[in-house]
Amino acid sequence: MKDTRIQDYLNSFDPKNYIPQLSLDFVIFTYHEETLKVLALKMIGVDFWVLPSGFVWQEEDLEESAARNLRERTGIERLFLRQFHTFGKKSRYFPEVQKAIKERTTLYPKIRDWYNHRFVTVGYYALVEYNRVAPQLDIFTEAYTWLDIDAVGVLAMDHPEIVEKAREILSHDLSTYPVGVDLLPEMFTLPELQKLYEAILGRPIDRGNFRKKILKENMLEKLSHQKTGEPHRSPYFYRFVSNDDISLKQEKSKFGF
Amino acid sequence: MKDTRIQDYLNSFDPKNYIPQLSLDFVIFTYHEETLKVLALKMIGVDFWVLPSGFVWQEEDLEESAARNLRERTGIERLFLRQFHTFGKKSRYFPEVQKAIKERTTLYPKIRDWYNHRFVTVGYYALVEYNRVAPQLDIFTEAYTWLDIDAVGVLAMDHPEIVEKAREILSHDLSTYPVGVDLLPEMFTLPELQKLYEAILGRPIDRGNFRKKILKENMLEKLSHQKTGEPHRSPYFYRFVSNDDISLKQEKSKFGF
Repeated sequence: MKDTRIQDYLNSFDPKNYIPQLSLDFVIFTYHEETLKVLALKMIGVDFWVLPSGFVWQEEDLEESAARNLRERTGIERLFLRQFHTFGKKSRYFPEVQKAIKERTTLYPKIRDWYNHRFVTVGYYALVEYNRVAPQLDIFTEAYTWLDIDAVGVLAMDHPEIVEKAREILSHDLSTYPVGVDLLPEMFTLPELQKLYEAILGRPIDRGNFRKKILKENMLEKLSHQKTGEPHRSPYFYRFVSNDDISLKQEKSKFGF
Repeated sequence: MKDTRIQDYLNSFDPKNYIPQLSLDFVIFTYHEETLKVLALKMIGVDFWVLPSGFVWQEEDLEESAARNLRERTGIERLFLRQFHTFGKKSRYFPEVQKAIKERTTLYPKIRDWYNHRFVTVGYYALVEYNRVAPQLDIFTEAYTWLDIDAVGVLAMDHPEIVEKAREILSHDLSTYPVGVDLLPEMFTLPELQKLYEAILGRPIDRGNFRKKILKENMLEKLSHQKTGEPHRSPYFYRFVSNDDISLKQEKSKFGF
């Protein structure tokens, strides 16, 4: 069934409709069991894991294309999709990986030629809450998994490097964007928020310092009830103030002056 | 003379050597007379100002290409060249501007076809000290100017939007990179540094607040002599501590935690 649909797709694929040698790659972060994770896909008939990716139509904006490709490849519709870097090493041509793809497409010379080049790829990252997202596989994809951030070295091509750069930018964005809005449930304790920051940064943070700085940003609202059932303490729940308020406060605190 | 060289160039131009539909654009910032400025070029035989730009060889890394194009187009060699955004609206095709270029290249069908497409462009910004840089014009360029940041609306195509985005990112980078290292002379006073920050942000900053925050970053060294000749006060000179120390401090203060 899927195979017929793939053949239909390949028959109708016309390289002229796409910008040549340009691709998009998506680093979809989630947070689960105190670990930062990244979505990886396994294509049908090939034996490696890759980031979701896509190509750009001649007749669409790059940002539209990013939203469309993410939706088509994973079923995920997100507002917070951020372009973070464009990767263009001349070594971005991966014959050993593309061989597998090409073997499936020998009947389709148009597609063989399409892949027979180096690609420049625009990287986007997205943040999704683990419990709210179940990726929908497209016709090319056999399986998905959430890779632990420390295990992304298994990804094919230069995808580990792309994830590393995305994590660097995400770490940077911690100081200007309340990433917890997208990655945590509505209510959380400060220790839980700190664990998220530590997972992103990949290192421990001093507890007192974290409390002081995060509360100073005025993005959190302390609720009146406490989390129970934990030994020795019952931390209060917090939630993020509404997005509008956050934008306002970001604007004010922007650039630190 | 230049015209012969252009003809030679156009005769030898082979689109196969370049990645199609991909360009680079450069926002070269400088700071002079308390104003943030951007380098603009006027091509020979056309009547508008543009940012320096270039194309990417099939056989070079994107970052190599950026350094090469900047050097070839402006004579500027900079270490601090930062990729800041990739622009890819489907409207990035500018027949009215390209008509002028095409009229000069009607004898060269290869080039006409080359321009006959929408381009995705990768934006880089650079910071140069006004007194240390004298742009060298290449064979395509008739004149250069340093446009005041508030006057970049005169640039052709979507280049004003590209400058605006570069300025936004530069403003953002103020909190993590000591941009004054590249834009100011070796010694400067705190009021002079503040004026630079205000020129980049496009708004006034509270003086006491600025002093407190900038000194807290530990990137400045106070010198023992004062600037004289100014009415009412003689502010001390400062300079940036060495680059190695700055990197170290950036690493420590990164992400605010």
